[in-house]
Formats: sequence, structure tokens, C-alpha cells
Amino acid sequence: MTPVLYLDDLAPGQTHTTPTLTVSEADIIAFAREYDPQPFHLDEEAARQSLFGGLAASGWHTAALTMRLIITGGMPIASGTVGLGGEITWPTPMRPGDRLRVESTVLVVTPSRSKPDRGVVAVENLTKNQKDEIVQRFVAKLMVPRRPAGEVA
Amino acid sequence: MTPVLYLDDLAPGQTHTTPTLTVSEADIIAFAREYDPQPFHLDEEAARQSLFGGLAASGWHTAALTMRLIITGGMPIASGTVGLGGEITWPTPMRPGDRLRVESTVLVVTPSRSKPDRGVVAVENLTKNQKDEIVQRFVAKLMVPRRPAGEVA
Repeated sequence: MTPVLYLDDLAPGQTHTTPTLTVSEADIIAFAREYDPQPFHLDEEAARQSLFGGLAASGWHTAALTMRLIITGGMPIASGTVGLGGEITWPTPMRPGDRLRVESTVLVVTPSRSKPDRGVVAVENLTKNQKDEIVQRFVAKLMVPRRPAGEVA
Repeated sequence: MTPVLYLDDLAPGQTHTTPTLTVSEADIIAFAREYDPQPFHLDEEAARQSLFGGLAASGWHTAALTMRLIITGGMPIASGTVGLGGEITWPTPMRPGDRLRVESTVLVVTPSRSKPDRGVVAVENLTKNQKDEIVQRFVAKLMVPRRPAGEVA
């Protein structure tokens, strides 16, 4: 069984990198059709004439694939990755054929004052493509439980 | 033709509300299976025993549906809704059967100093359910073009 991480196991500066996944043009168009139907996410020709200069994925598609990478190959937080929110930017668009990975760094660990069984952890998640360009930066605030009394580390 | 909004047309305090859409349990599970496969997003029984107390959608699903509402029924920004990023929180989980709408308020309009043809607009997008609970708050920074010289308002 994979050991899980409690608040007690996390400290600023810890890092983790996920495996990679590759996004296709068909994936980008299918997501956009469902959730972000704008010409520059749907059609190469229209996208060439937009400020993107070519087909670009919805930022929310980048966010969703980042979450898939984190859940299937990120830090194994005890009781799951429960995000309260965070700050998101998309410095470079995700493009067809991009091979993505997520590099995560623990920034701040804050035990809760009112609830002794948990805390909040700020994690910077940089989603990078095969050229090491950052397609998304998401600084997430995660709710993380403390190790239950009696459980061995 | 729907008139589009340029930077020149936007001012702090302007508001817009989208039509609604309803999310089903099947939608929530399908999204989670693809992008956020955690037990509390996939299975009612597992979710009941989690801190959510019942099936809860991935926050990224809430974000994606919010974008769909904005693109199909939000403020018609000239040249599309291009987000640079923003701050996102999920105060209440999205649940099966929720009927969502997005209430948008322009917060700040900032013409670019270096690029006279555009600017950045901060917009608060509150996604609310049928009980007026906020399932997502997203303060977006959008890139918005100025009205081209010679085009009539």
C-alpha cells in the first residue's frame, strides 16, 4: 500500500514531479466544445487569426489535466486532495501534442487553530510542457488531516 | 448581430447574470472519472463517509461549467473571453441536481501602458446554485481590446 502524507509529513521546500501525459488536438477541441466554445479553442484556421496564432487549449482544460496528473501521480495526501482554492495563471497556452507534467513544491504548512485534526498547506503546482514552458501556475490551498493519534509514521 | 464590449464600454460596478444550467449526477461522475478520480467525486457511498457528506463535484468541473455559462451567456467581450488567470475558491461544493448561474461584476478596468490597443479587466464571477449558495468565486483578469479607431460605439 502506498504510504499517505499527513500534515505532519509536509514541510516547505518538499517537491514532487508527476509522470507525463500528452494532449491531442482532438482532446483540446472536445473539451472546448463542451466547456469553452470559443473559435481559438475549436478551429485551427480561426485560431491562426486570433492572438493565440494557432489552436490553443482552454485554460480550464489545462487545469483539469493538471488535476488528473496530480490525482494519478502526485503527492499522496491522506484522505485525498481537497482544494479550498488558489491562484491560477496561464503564462503560455497548452497546444496540441504538448506533453505535460506537474512539478509541485510545498510552500507553507499551517496547522488549524480551531480544528486540531487538520491544517492548510499551500502548494505551488507548475504545469510544464516538453519545452519546459509553464502552461499553468496554480498555488493551491489544500486541506490536509493530521496523523491520527496512535498511527505509526 | 449582438453588440460586443470593448475596454471602453466597461466600468467598475457593471453587472451581468447568465442563464442557468443544471448539472446531473452522471455529469459529475463522468467529469471526475476523466479529470479528478477521487472517491468523493465518483461514488455516493464513499462520498457519504468523506468530509463532503455526499457526492460532490470536482472544483474543476464547477470551473468548467462556469466557463460554459460565461461563454454562452455572459458579457460579450470583443474578440472573446481571454483569461490571464485569477483567484478561485469553492466555498460550497457543487452537488447533483444543482441549477447554476453566474453573476459577474466588473471590479477594475486598467488600460495597458505599453499596448494602447488593449487593457486588463478584473471581473468577479460568482457561481451560485438554486439556493443562492456560492459554489465558486473566481476573480478573473481578462485581456480586453479597445474599440478600434473609427468603429462606432
